[in-house]
Amino acid sequence: MDFDALFNAQLDQLKADGNYRYFAELERQCGKFPRAANHAADGAVRDVTVWCSNDYLGMGQHPAVIGAMCEAVQRTGTGSGGTRNISGTNHDHLLLERELADLHGKQSALLFTSGYVSNWAALSTLGSRLENCVILSDAGNHASMIEGIRHSRAQKVIWKHNDYHDLEMKLRALPADVPKIVAFESVYSMDGDIAPIRQIVEVCEKYGAMTYLDEVHAVGMYGPRGGGVSEREGLADRITLIEGTLGKAYGVVGGYITGSAALCDFIRSFASGFIFTTALPPAIAAAARASIAYLKESQMERARQRRQVARLRAALDRAGIPHMLNDSHIVPVLIKDPVKTRMLADYLMREWDIYVQPINYPTVPKGTERLRFTPSPLHSDEDIDHLVTALRVLWKQCALAHAVA
Amino acid sequence: MDFDALFNAQLDQLKADGNYRYFAELERQCGKFPRAANHAADGAVRDVTVWCSNDYLGMGQHPAVIGAMCEAVQRTGTGSGGTRNISGTNHDHLLLERELADLHGKQSALLFTSGYVSNWAALSTLGSRLENCVILSDAGNHASMIEGIRHSRAQKVIWKHNDYHDLEMKLRALPADVPKIVAFESVYSMDGDIAPIRQIVEVCEKYGAMTYLDEVHAVGMYGPRGGGVSEREGLADRITLIEGTLGKAYGVVGGYITGSAALCDFIRSFASGFIFTTALPPAIAAAARASIAYLKESQMERARQRRQVARLRAALDRAGIPHMLNDSHIVPVLIKDPVKTRMLADYLMREWDIYVQPINYPTVPKGTERLRFTPSPLHSDEDIDHLVTALRVLWKQCALAHAVA
Repeated sequence: MDFDALFNAQLDQLKADGNYRYFAELERQCGKFPRAANHAADGAVRDVTVWCSNDYLGMGQHPAVIGAMCEAVQRTGTGSGGTRNISGTNHDHLLLERELADLHGKQSALLFTSGYVSNWAALSTLGSRLENCVILSDAGNHASMIEGIRHSRAQKVIWKHNDYHDLEMKLRALPADVPKIVAFESVYSMDGDIAPIRQIVEVCEKYGAMTYLDEVHAVGMYGPRGGGVSEREGLADRITLIEGTLGKAYGVVGGYITGSAALCDFIRSFASGFIFTTALPPAIAAAARASIAYLKESQMERARQRRQVARLRAALDRAGIPHMLNDSHIVPVLIKDPVKTRMLADYLMREWDIYVQPINYPTVPKGTERLRFTPSPLHSDEDIDHLVTALRVLWKQCALAHAVA
Repeated sequence: MDFDALFNAQLDQLKADGNYRYFAELERQCGKFPRAANHAADGAVRDVTVWCSNDYLGMGQHPAVIGAMCEAVQRTGTGSGGTRNISGTNHDHLLLERELADLHGKQSALLFTSGYVSNWAALSTLGSRLENCVILSDAGNHASMIEGIRHSRAQKVIWKHNDYHDLEMKLRALPADVPKIVAFESVYSMDGDIAPIRQIVEVCEKYGAMTYLDEVHAVGMYGPRGGGVSEREGLADRITLIEGTLGKAYGVVGGYITGSAALCDFIRSFASGFIFTTALPPAIAAAARASIAYLKESQMERARQRRQVARLRAALDRAGIPHMLNDSHIVPVLIKDPVKTRMLADYLMREWDIYVQPINYPTVPKGTERLRFTPSPLHSDEDIDHLVTALRVLWKQCALAHAVA
């Protein structure tokens, strides 16, 4: 059987739909973020300004984080050497888990190799091991939660995005005595909208449901200590499980859950995706811990990020470039066509040294393709002016193209 | 609903069965491997010899690997800043993927956050996207493959462990025109036995099946360049997909697949577990590449590992301690009871400063609990003598206990 032919047929379809993905090849350069070197397909290398990084606060180049990582590599080596059970648990992992539990005011925390794995492993374990469990999932939830729920084979009920009235209706329709898990996010990554956490929590409490909150696009950036939107709203202690990442605002890699000691021990003891995988290098744990500890204290990065986000939005408004309104740090500009989105992104890269990845299916629904900008504290006012000038020129050219078409 | 009570009920059952897991807390100390500091539950800290690490060759503390990682942290920072699609692809990732493709003599390679994720994502994507696909899975396959196949919802046929006659019978029973994937490992981690790869490949070729080979316990250690058992046997070019890890013999973290350009592009384009997760830090990629490049050339570590494995086996034989025979570097000693296995391991740690994790369900089937020793090139002859002396004393005490019972 010609397997390559089968693969190519599906890849060709992807290309015909405009959904085939070309990865931009970057070289991050410590100390220069948001600047990075871009290797073009023709071999040319030049500096661009990255406008779509999830290293939201630039912590990936913070001296405290880099220092902690190098120190730990020199001290412990480059790997953990095993699964958490078989020689892979290091002192640095436990220190990080304590730091994470403290960050969210929970009894315990559990570290995973990624945020994806933490969602997938936790939800698939909860859904499969709690008898008759029903998982109520926000319609906008991330792929990692969707796959975890799917893998659990538990009954799944989808409620309308951010709509706690719909959630309540669906909770009310379920038998009182089945375990219910309500899974949702605080900041949704592609629209940047924020969940009405308080109302959701209140509904869940009314119906005795467990709350499962993904804060990956919020930790480090919201709340006085970076504990996420649940910290900012004073709701963390009313949420059963808070999931987060070390790979976005904290600038490293890895994921985690926090919750009661029994909950974390349960996932630790039964989750295939936790048990059967090599633990993260101790040096990654040390770097993440340094980043979390730093952002528990420092307000500067969060304040400066808010300022630059507001500045970009205001400049877009002045330039007449429509962008999605939300209360987060994510600034999406809808294009609604995968081919046009790619053309715009290519043009920005080639003519303006601006890198923003076109966002297409399956990351967003078809017809909602977009450019998604994430201003960091390290984007200067000049960077913002340059970006908006470029967009204004592009928008004019498009309008012109429309006029003569 | 009292969720903690539900969790605790299942945890109590685990404890009653002797299957509850206590992680040993270590501090790896660069340059001292296989020695590490152990933090006991009572707070005491002392050096122990680690006998169960999957840092099989001690590369996690090799100066070339540590140097590469620190250099890259200083150069690129601590994280990748995004998914591979959205700003997360770095030059170091591509260099590593080229190195991996070369290692296995394939057109392409694709990097994942872990070996678990590479198996899970690749198999779930192949099984779900190839119409009418049947996956024929060796009965001894790792959890990551089992979960990937399960997630794909493709038809699954289990064939008897390492039994290519049974595989042939099962392949013959399937319609000629359905895509078939035969998934197996080269070195099985818990028994240490090696698959009859040549015979399996021949059967697969006869029936037009794709071969999916997991080499995670072999890469770095087998074959003249560390390309695994498939390299040693000259069979790599006849295998469709070779999967491996950077977290065991290479001493870092991460997983990968290699195969045709179309195959890797297919997984890259459709696998949820690849698409929706933050890319590994460039520094991890740089460290892994240094490790692979080093082990492509150096034979010393492999030769010395073989010597120490043979030495441990011979010493166990002389001491009359039964161990499972196999042709790999893994030396399992069956105890067949979870409580006794833990008692022995605790005793070795407490009285002899020897750390070997008790291996219990679900890592091995119930009733096959064991101690699993992995001699590295860095275990000295004295380390081996010390271990075998300890085991001899323990075995005598057990015999005595049996006699007076």
